Amino acid sequence: MTKEDRPKSANIRKKPKKQLMMFSGRSHPGLAQEIAALIGTELVPTSAYNFANGEIYVRYEESVRGSDAFVIQSHSAPLNEAIMEHLIMIDALKRASAKRITVVMPFYGYARQDKKHRGREPISARLMADLFRTAGADRLIAVDLHTDQIQGFFDGPVDHLMAQPVLSDYVSAKYGHEDLAVVSPDAGRIKVAEQWSKRLGGVPLAFIHKTRDVNQPNQAVANRVVGEVKGRVCVLVDDMIDTGGTIAKAADALRADGAKDVIIAATHAILSAPATERLRDCAAREVIVTNTLPIAPESEFEGLTVLSIAPLISAAIKEVFEDGSVTSLFGGRA
Amino acid sequence: MTKEDRPKSANIRKKPKKQLMMFSGRSHPGLAQEIAALIGTELVPTSAYNFANGEIYVRYEESVRGSDAFVIQSHSAPLNEAIMEHLIMIDALKRASAKRITVVMPFYGYARQDKKHRGREPISARLMADLFRTAGADRLIAVDLHTDQIQGFFDGPVDHLMAQPVLSDYVSAKYGHEDLAVVSPDAGRIKVAEQWSKRLGGVPLAFIHKTRDVNQPNQAVANRVVGEVKGRVCVLVDDMIDTGGTIAKAADALRADGAKDVIIAATHAILSAPATERLRDCAAREVIVTNTLPIAPESEFEGLTVLSIAPLISAAIKEVFEDGSVTSLFGGRA
Amino acid sequence: MTKEDRPKSANIRKKPKKQLMMFSGRSHPGLAQEIAALIGTELVPTSAYNFANGEIYVRYEESVRGSDAFVIQSHSAPLNEAIMEHLIMIDALKRASAKRITVVMPFYGYARQDKKHRGREPISARLMADLFRTAGADRLIAVDLHTDQIQGFFDGPVDHLMAQPVLSDYVSAKYGHEDLAVVSPDAGRIKVAEQWSKRLGGVPLAFIHKTRDVNQPNQAVANRVVGEVKGRVCVLVDDMIDTGGTIAKAADALRADGAKDVIIAATHAILSAPATERLRDCAAREVIVTNTLPIAPESEFEGLTVLSIAPLISAAIKEVFEDGSVTSLFGGRA
Amino acid sequence: MTKEDRPKSANIRKKPKKQLMMFSGRSHPGLAQEIAALIGTELVPTSAYNFANGEIYVRYEESVRGSDAFVIQSHSAPLNEAIMEHLIMIDALKRASAKRITVVMPFYGYARQDKKHRGREPISARLMADLFRTAGADRLIAVDLHTDQIQGFFDGPVDHLMAQPVLSDYVSAKYGHEDLAVVSPDAGRIKVAEQWSKRLGGVPLAFIHKTRDVNQPNQAVANRVVGEVKGRVCVLVDDMIDTGGTIAKAADALRADGAKDVIIAATHAILSAPATERLRDCAAREVIVTNTLPIAPESEFEGLTVLSIAPLISAAIKEVFEDGSVTSLFGGRA
Amino acid sequence: MTKEDRPKSANIRKKPKKQLMMFSGRSHPGLAQEIAALIGTELVPTSAYNFANGEIYVRYEESVRGSDAFVIQSHSAPLNEAIMEHLIMIDALKRASAKRITVVMPFYGYARQDKKHRGREPISARLMADLFRTAGADRLIAVDLHTDQIQGFFDGPVDHLMAQPVLSDYVSAKYGHEDLAVVSPDAGRIKVAEQWSKRLGGVPLAFIHKTRDVNQPNQAVANRVVGEVKGRVCVLVDDMIDTGGTIAKAADALRADGAKDVIIAATHAILSAPATERLRDCAAREVIVTNTLPIAPESEFEGLTVLSIAPLISAAIKEVFEDGSVTSLFGGRA
Amino acid sequence: MTKEDRPKSANIRKKPKKQLMMFSGRSHPGLAQEIAALIGTELVPTSAYNFANGEIYVRYEESVRGSDAFVIQSHSAPLNEAIMEHLIMIDALKRASAKRITVVMPFYGYARQDKKHRGREPISARLMADLFRTAGADRLIAVDLHTDQIQGFFDGPVDHLMAQPVLSDYVSAKYGHEDLAVVSPDAGRIKVAEQWSKRLGGVPLAFIHKTRDVNQPNQAVANRVVGEVKGRVCVLVDDMIDTGGTIAKAADALRADGAKDVIIAATHAILSAPATERLRDCAAREVIVTNTLPIAPESEFEGLTVLSIAPLISAAIKEVFEDGSVTSLFGGRA
Repeated sequence: MTKEDRPKSANIRKKPKKQLMMFSGRSHPGLAQEIAALIGTELVPTSAYNFANGEIYVRYEESVRGSDAFVIQSHSAPLNEAIMEHLIMIDALKRASAKRITVVMPFYGYARQDKKHRGREPISARLMADLFRTAGADRLIAVDLHTDQIQGFFDGPVDHLMAQPVLSDYVSAKYGHEDLAVVSPDAGRIKVAEQWSKRLGGVPLAFIHKTRDVNQPNQAVANRVVGEVKGRVCVLVDDMIDTGGTIAKAADALRADGAKDVIIAATHAILSAPATERLRDCAAREVIVTNTLPIAPESEFEGLTVLSIAPLISAAIKEVFEDGSVTSLFGGRA
Repeated sequence: MTKEDRPKSANIRKKPKKQLMMFSGRSHPGLAQEIAALIGTELVPTSAYNFANGEIYVRYEESVRGSDAFVIQSHSAPLNEAIMEHLIMIDALKRASAKRITVVMPFYGYARQDKKHRGREPISARLMADLFRTAGADRLIAVDLHTDQIQGFFDGPVDHLMAQPVLSDYVSAKYGHEDLAVVSPDAGRIKVAEQWSKRLGGVPLAFIHKTRDVNQPNQAVANRVVGEVKGRVCVLVDDMIDTGGTIAKAADALRADGAKDVIIAATHAILSAPATERLRDCAAREVIVTNTLPIAPESEFEGLTVLSIAPLISAAIKEVFEDGSVTSLFGGRA
Repeated sequence: MTKEDRPKSANIRKKPKKQLMMFSGRSHPGLAQEIAALIGTELVPTSAYNFANGEIYVRYEESVRGSDAFVIQSHSAPLNEAIMEHLIMIDALKRASAKRITVVMPFYGYARQDKKHRGREPISARLMADLFRTAGADRLIAVDLHTDQIQGFFDGPVDHLMAQPVLSDYVSAKYGHEDLAVVSPDAGRIKVAEQWSKRLGGVPLAFIHKTRDVNQPNQAVANRVVGEVKGRVCVLVDDMIDTGGTIAKAADALRADGAKDVIIAATHAILSAPATERLRDCAAREVIVTNTLPIAPESEFEGLTVLSIAPLISAAIKEVFEDGSVTSLFGGRA
Repeated sequence: MTKEDRPKSANIRKKPKKQLMMFSGRSHPGLAQEIAALIGTELVPTSAYNFANGEIYVRYEESVRGSDAFVIQSHSAPLNEAIMEHLIMIDALKRASAKRITVVMPFYGYARQDKKHRGREPISARLMADLFRTAGADRLIAVDLHTDQIQGFFDGPVDHLMAQPVLSDYVSAKYGHEDLAVVSPDAGRIKVAEQWSKRLGGVPLAFIHKTRDVNQPNQAVANRVVGEVKGRVCVLVDDMIDTGGTIAKAADALRADGAKDVIIAATHAILSAPATERLRDCAAREVIVTNTLPIAPESEFEGLTVLSIAPLISAAIKEVFEDGSVTSLFGGRA
Repeated sequence: MTKEDRPKSANIRKKPKKQLMMFSGRSHPGLAQEIAALIGTELVPTSAYNFANGEIYVRYEESVRGSDAFVIQSHSAPLNEAIMEHLIMIDALKRASAKRITVVMPFYGYARQDKKHRGREPISARLMADLFRTAGADRLIAVDLHTDQIQGFFDGPVDHLMAQPVLSDYVSAKYGHEDLAVVSPDAGRIKVAEQWSKRLGGVPLAFIHKTRDVNQPNQAVANRVVGEVKGRVCVLVDDMIDTGGTIAKAADALRADGAKDVIIAATHAILSAPATERLRDCAAREVIVTNTLPIAPESEFEGLTVLSIAPLISAAIKEVFEDGSVTSLFGGRA
Repeated sequence: MTKEDRPKSANIRKKPKKQLMMFSGRSHPGLAQEIAALIGTELVPTSAYNFANGEIYVRYEESVRGSDAFVIQSHSAPLNEAIMEHLIMIDALKRASAKRITVVMPFYGYARQDKKHRGREPISARLMADLFRTAGADRLIAVDLHTDQIQGFFDGPVDHLMAQPVLSDYVSAKYGHEDLAVVSPDAGRIKVAEQWSKRLGGVPLAFIHKTRDVNQPNQAVANRVVGEVKGRVCVLVDDMIDTGGTIAKAADALRADGAKDVIIAATHAILSAPATERLRDCAAREVIVTNTLPIAPESEFEGLTVLSIAPLISAAIKEVFEDGSVTSLFGGRA
């Protein structure tokens, strides 16, 4: 069809533009700003406050029509506030005609409730996926989901980023010259430890087996180390540290079993009280985490190392925006 | 088809039973218990607590399979906690095979955000309706929605209960011998005042018009009374009292305009600080509310009268369970 | 990834083009053409007729594949015909691969049925929103919805255009030198009057209160003016004029109460019989409306002023097409 | 679980009741009443009228909560009015808590638009199925759909009733002693004629082939009879008669080809003008239809026989209500 | 808004690129490669295999993010394998962020199950449409659907391509000088034959009527030719040849009725055993099909002509990708 | 409302009956019959066969209207056939008006594809959940899902039955007097082994760690036993045995590490070739499985013990039908 033949009813044409816009809720603005800076943009100015009875109000100060929107909120305490604000921000974007809405959750709330342990429980991790879909989320970006299956809870694309390279590169650089062992604090998460072991060049693997002492019924649980750790620097790995009880006891058990030293590495530093005390007082020499969640000044302590997750998230956002490959960031995985 | 002819593949028959079960979240258990008692049942024993990082956990202690479930939660502060717990309770009921799930919201959170006042705002009241639908709600029961249109936000049946008869019967009995006037604190809610006027036998109507004094630009808003109130006992009516600023000023304006006395009547007593102080100190002689929301002991004051909404809600639940008529409770409306 | 490295399976690339196409149903083609002309395009040639039994047939004469389609139909009488044609046009666009379908409703049918006044009524305004969504509408543009909450009935973006500036600018220019008052014909719509008052510089506000005369039971309703109108030019404002009964009586009541003159201003001129007679014969000096609905020649009369809504709608369509800001057209609102 | 053990929270039990309620729109109340009478019930009293601008208003005068609702409306002219009223009635039932909504369409509007004949057409028959689903229809009952595939357009159970036995039993009784032939007026509907032939005991089959006379280009279409009809009483069968042009010409062509006599049999008597004149004046001796659509007195003529479809529809409703078998009404089909 | 004024939060802009990517399942890779070559691209490298228990595994070897994906799979035997692989490929594309997913089905499996012939049957053709929609299909391209109504089964755009021109051009070129007749093997498909007749210049039409011999009850079915075929070269047309029984018998019946010669033309060559033997041994001189389905070497025989459908499908894909007109490929139809 | 007052429009009432009907596909009829017999019913007679090109046809021989339908199909090889038949059976039930459809999957196909191991893979286990939902499944019953999270893939109630008690009771009875150890063949499934350990009274736990020998790069994987197994009878536990490679090697490794004896226990006996040879030839003394999948006679061998899962599934179906508690079957879990 030549230009001359083209009917008059079709003479309004335009080359579309894609425009990246970044939004942040109020739970962890520092991380959002760091990500924005790495991408070379700024967060969209946003009004957000609570009414007297706790209802959240949100409004964007600039037009978002047609934008490729990335909405960042980490689900930190008060967690239900953070999630509800996230949902409301998405609703506002949808109704203001954002073209595509990518929800960025450095920490995905309720990820641990990913199955029914007993009858008549909810599966809250699936519920969250559905709530975000309903609000208007087209796609998700999340870091180190508690289990990989959560990716399947969302009805749409999920870019699942792995913080492990960030953590293990640090461990390699600092402790690579030692005889290492990788230890899972729990039988259910050995798979993750196995990946660490592979990445650290095939170092031995162990896990902590919680048992009830059969000779002393009604007695507390004992932590038995399964695997060889004697004389080794043990890297205790987990996806998150909440109150720190399990992992602190694991560190102590490892030392008791002859470990030369213990390092703790985890992606999500929830650090609910009394995590700081427990970690500071346990046998671990260093606790390495990322800033997927905000860490309160009062939760910090000597021996706590916080690595930034912002380079990883910003790289992923760039790939998503430019239709590149997020998988390539992880050598094929994700 | 006679019994003899019936094929063997169809010989397992049973008369179904309908079973009413009531559930309550943690925001306002007293009201739920009062409703259950009026119906003649007890709340289903439920475990509910928060994990260290704020995630809510819920589990029912009895089988709920096949039940006609009514889940009561008033969206009181901390409101987002209350809503999230409500959603999670519904998810657990859905996955545990409740037959029908009726969500009972004595106070519907975010009802005031029922429209966009400006561009790029959410419509959170619609979002809430969709979140509850997604979680598994089959139907809603709510009391005095901020606007009637919210009924249309939910994709399913909504039984919209009106507290006005509860309040106005009390006013009639106590103040019916006076020369009354009904006053709306705001131009947008005169329709409600008109219903009060009708129910009180056609008493005069007035409203407060907030104006900017044109002679003193950049000056605060003035409350002008539109309508005749001189010498009358004014019944100031609204659906909710949050911080109480508007309504307390309205009471004062009425007295300043010559009202003999002022009575405040509202369904939902949110009473965010400093509502108690304002109401106690304003020109109103009595403040009449219902218990759709829990009222903290420290929010109470002399002059505050709390009427119970439990008889209304329990009557509605009974009608819903027995396939009766909720409309009949209101003489055709609702 | 350099061009050389790019795999062969990805060598078909193209810069997409956005193409605006406008479509009109048969209810109000004049307005659609006026809008198209202001945008600088023409309506897509469309076959549309009814089969003998009333079934509507529609077909587009040009390819619409990939277009950014705007489908204009005002829901004028015969209203159900207009709505069904609108729905069928959307279905045809969806199946013909239009990229995005924006439904333009200068007048949104059934907007007045936005709530249940009594039990066992439909909420037809919500039903309409769902029907249009089901047919394939991605977004809506509407003018002066009966209530703002209707925006929340549609599960997607709604650009809600306000005709008030069009009307009030005209009133300001022509009557700005007079002592004005803004009057709502009904207690339920004072909020709108308040906006007028603000826009006209803070002029006084009044409303008509319909009461049953308590001394003469079984007697017709009386229109009582609440507020001060004596000696003023009253601007009676409403969103629509259907049969004109309420507003004509209100005009008469205002004159009876001492108004110097009465002007009626409303967005939607439904003008069902006998509106023309009533308006022509009532106390109003001028009746100002827009052309959101077609006005039959026999419905016109001296004193009726019709302002065009086309500039507003065409500006909105341009902003939507170009990912600009519709909100900016209204200084932040909408 | 014995009664004693049963927890108190489960003590409200009830044996549910199923209750059949029938509703009729305004298009064909006579048929609805006839069906109700055959079932032994009465139509639920319903207010229905149009507002001045054509908007339809509906309200039920009795509680419908928990009912097994059957909503009858035949899509007769003005057809779009009838469909919209049908949709609005369903919305009202859904919001009033009917338990199950079965939509009964003796004639399914837009059934002929069941495919795209050309590009950029709608598939309105599918659109209708989706609109009814959206409004709240759980299931459909329809008579003689234009094509069987329309059953697949609805996302739920469809009971497709066949009027053919009603018609063919009449034909058998009255004309069974003659040498019959069954004739399709159109190549596309021979399948239906084949079923008639089988039911009438294997009588010969013919069809009318519309051809363009190749010797006289640009000349009108000729009706050529394919098959042997000489000396036979021809039963011309179709699903509907709209303007009657095709079938009247077919009747004449059959007589011209030597048919002894012609009988026309069709389920749906749309009879748009000038159907009555055409049928009265054509070569057919008798025209047999059912009352799936209302037949205006002025459309009747000698030679028109109207058989009632009410016994068939009422039998189907009973089977549906009692969980019996609709298929059994047709010996396995449907 | 000038570039200078643009807020910093909106400074990441990009011109989007559309990128066509083609994918093929394992059922008919030859056709997919032929189509890709005609378009000038290559198929995306894809890993696909079955696990030991038959579960299909699929993975794409290149990033597909943002692509305009066309996924080709013909539903050939083992048909359920082919369909499941098709569905899984779509799921993988959806989760890998393909922008738009067009499903290309040269042969649409289960198309013959497009209605319920009897009660308690599925409508599998509709089920397939819904399964593909659920997996993530945005749109379909299919060739010669068994009935046109199937287009209405899919909730989205369907480009329905017609192979008839491919077949009839070949017939015209080779047999156009003969006295032709077009014959339908079945009463239900005469409509298709009518289109052939028109395209071949208005040649006569006939069909085969299967009857039960009334003189010999319980006797096999007889094939009676309805229409004039004597001395003509008959083109027997159908959409598909499965086991070939019906069409081979029809060919023999035509010869028995005096046809000069018989040609069989069909789009889809399913050729289930013993189709090859039947076709080779029947009275037809040539059997013309397309390669919408793969034809096994052992199914070929002298007299079988296979025309390629690849030019048609590749032309359609190009139009879809470039937002051109598929309808134009067929002179307005489709 | 007394009987006398009841309006005539509501006089058709009925006590509903619930009727359990069981349906089986063709993959594992023996198990379905065993379940039906335990419940005291028979399978609904069903026609099911494949057309020549592989399309599946299904029809029920009895009315299923209003039934509480349980559709059993185990996803055994040819697995995609089994799944597609399952989906088609559900579609037929939905269209034939079954009241509730419970899908029973003794083995859930594609359960192992419950996450993306690498980019651009499908999550087929979620896809299956969505396909079954789309076809019409209201709820699922499944046995030992590969991971618990799969329960969250389905948007509705899932009764997740555990075969472990069946297996471990057998092991306890036969080997309870020995010194036992429970071993997981894989780091990822230690959680399951932990449950076994608990149920067997707290016996020690071990797992097999697959490592790459760091001294011999590019060398095959070695199986290292982590935990103490010397002198013990090791119970190797897994959810399924496919080709048996992993578990047979694990058995050999355990014996090599000094285990006194090895017992293998797994729920799902897929037994793809060469599983039988591997299991027969490995170090395990007994292999204990259930009949969730059909076991071909040629796959059986001395040392293979098959326990029936039918009592568990029939008990669950009874609880579901009678609104009892499935959770109670497992002492609170599930």
